[in-house]
Amino acid sequence: MGYKVVVCGATGNVGREMLNILAERRFPVDEITALASRRSLGTEVSFGDRTLRTKDLDTFDFAGQDIAFFAIGSDATKRYAPGAARAGCVVIDNSSLYRYDPDVPLVVPEVNPEAVDGYAKKNIIANPNCSTAQMVVALKPLHDRARIRRVVVSTYQSVSGAGKQGMDELWDQTKAVYNPTSTVDPATFTKQIAFNVIPHIDAFMEDGSTREEWKMAAETKKIVDTKIKVTATCVRVPVFVGHSEAVNLEFEDFLDEDEARDILREAPGVMLVDKREEAGQHLARRLAAAKLALVVSDLLEDDQEAPVGQHT
Amino acid sequence: MGYKVVVCGATGNVGREMLNILAERRFPVDEITALASRRSLGTEVSFGDRTLRTKDLDTFDFAGQDIAFFAIGSDATKRYAPGAARAGCVVIDNSSLYRYDPDVPLVVPEVNPEAVDGYAKKNIIANPNCSTAQMVVALKPLHDRARIRRVVVSTYQSVSGAGKQGMDELWDQTKAVYNPTSTVDPATFTKQIAFNVIPHIDAFMEDGSTREEWKMAAETKKIVDTKIKVTATCVRVPVFVGHSEAVNLEFEDFLDEDEARDILREAPGVMLVDKREEAGQHLARRLAAAKLALVVSDLLEDDQEAPVGQHT
Repeated sequence: MGYKVVVCGATGNVGREMLNILAERRFPVDEITALASRRSLGTEVSFGDRTLRTKDLDTFDFAGQDIAFFAIGSDATKRYAPGAARAGCVVIDNSSLYRYDPDVPLVVPEVNPEAVDGYAKKNIIANPNCSTAQMVVALKPLHDRARIRRVVVSTYQSVSGAGKQGMDELWDQTKAVYNPTSTVDPATFTKQIAFNVIPHIDAFMEDGSTREEWKMAAETKKIVDTKIKVTATCVRVPVFVGHSEAVNLEFEDFLDEDEARDILREAPGVMLVDKREEAGQHLARRLAAAKLALVVSDLLEDDQEAPVGQHT
Repeated sequence: MGYKVVVCGATGNVGREMLNILAERRFPVDEITALASRRSLGTEVSFGDRTLRTKDLDTFDFAGQDIAFFAIGSDATKRYAPGAARAGCVVIDNSSLYRYDPDVPLVVPEVNPEAVDGYAKKNIIANPNCSTAQMVVALKPLHDRARIRRVVVSTYQSVSGAGKQGMDELWDQTKAVYNPTSTVDPATFTKQIAFNVIPHIDAFMEDGSTREEWKMAAETKKIVDTKIKVTATCVRVPVFVGHSEAVNLEFEDFLDEDEARDILREAPGVMLVDKREEAGQHLARRLAAAKLALVVSDLLEDDQEAPVGQHT
């Protein structure tokens, strides 16, 4: 016996990847429905060997469906998720809309699977920001052992985080740099992203940080431990796929480098790459290839305190 | 009355820029000599309106010269700087060779000009790593006011730090990405730098950090205060010119965000850009255009402690 599963936003990058993973991992699906906005209506998407024709999200009846994966923006989610949840379908939402709602569990399977139990209050489960999700997978086992007091993280986030548009903008804009008669003005990003780095992801908050930075702090607290202090600097870099992060941790208890390395080596979803050789360090491009596995490299013990620095 | 000035490595990016700045700032020069390795011999370089023909560094007699700016690698510096210094010429060295020598002052004019007084011991003055130099200009005035206890820095370093070769590699390799029949293998960098980030600059140290990361710690201590703890993660990004840094500071004394901002606004060599608007934040490309001025943007107070986050 399987489930009746719906993917909302099936024509986007995230929706397509959801369908791929559901098929690859042989998720017990009895019936699968791909939904899209009217604009993309009828577009065909792949589910394993099958081809699905997308249906209209706006008129779809969620009654009788078991699970709906939402991969549409917060605004559209606000419009459609409450109805789906009320109709008895469990909504698993990729947007930021419900992440900070105390009645909605924010879950990373490798980190806090038990939080899922709280889903019934709203019939909604939220899933964190991409930069948070990959970081907490590495933080959790270290926190369980030595209590993390403070996280200072700087990100190197790929344009895939801004969807297909962002990837196209980097591709086209870079190409235009080689053609003196053409330019591609910033649209998805606030500045030129070709050959540039932009410390500005999502809107500014009142305190001068960006919402992306605020999200990393709020979500890490909700998923791992509300007592952890987090300071994030989120930067967009001209990389197509794969977010990297430089993470500095301060612990309550003493934790040496070797033990931290052992913990990460055993941690679910983590791949530790710790080659200290000329061409050995990991990087964004290969991280993307490692798909579904977090790669932690360059683990270092501070000479004076006991934090851990890592690239994920 | 002016000085007899020599620029060693006059055909490289740094040497050419030295000649530009000496001319632009009307440094009191009576006589100027451009030296290069035998390979680049006779190449012409500009000094203001004048054109200089480079002479052979290997056979040049430094006796009678007042100041020699060295912009050649550590190995060549080791060969030529001691002779120049013994001949009575003050060597101002851009390589890392003498930076950690207790008998050689390591000077950033905006930060510790008084350290120059110690030059006579070896007749050599060293100049720090590019990523350190720009950071300490911002740290010093804050340290003077509130004592910095700890620095956690993540860098976004442009390929210009690897010289003209590095810039050519990014240009050619990126271009090749658009041409399915050509590739440009990594040579200056350990991995593909096009559309990638590489957390590996300079050689690995025994503790797993890179020498670039070690330099930032050792040089910051020597220039600002040996008691400051520094943890650096140095990352090469696909940007042509302009290093960016995300810097998190922990202070001994309380310092609020407004006062920190005022201090930086007044600091020599610092340009504070603190626009919290959609397209307002600064970035690598524009930083390069701001030449000779450090740009500090995105100043933030941590909600729980009192560090300052900044991009430089």
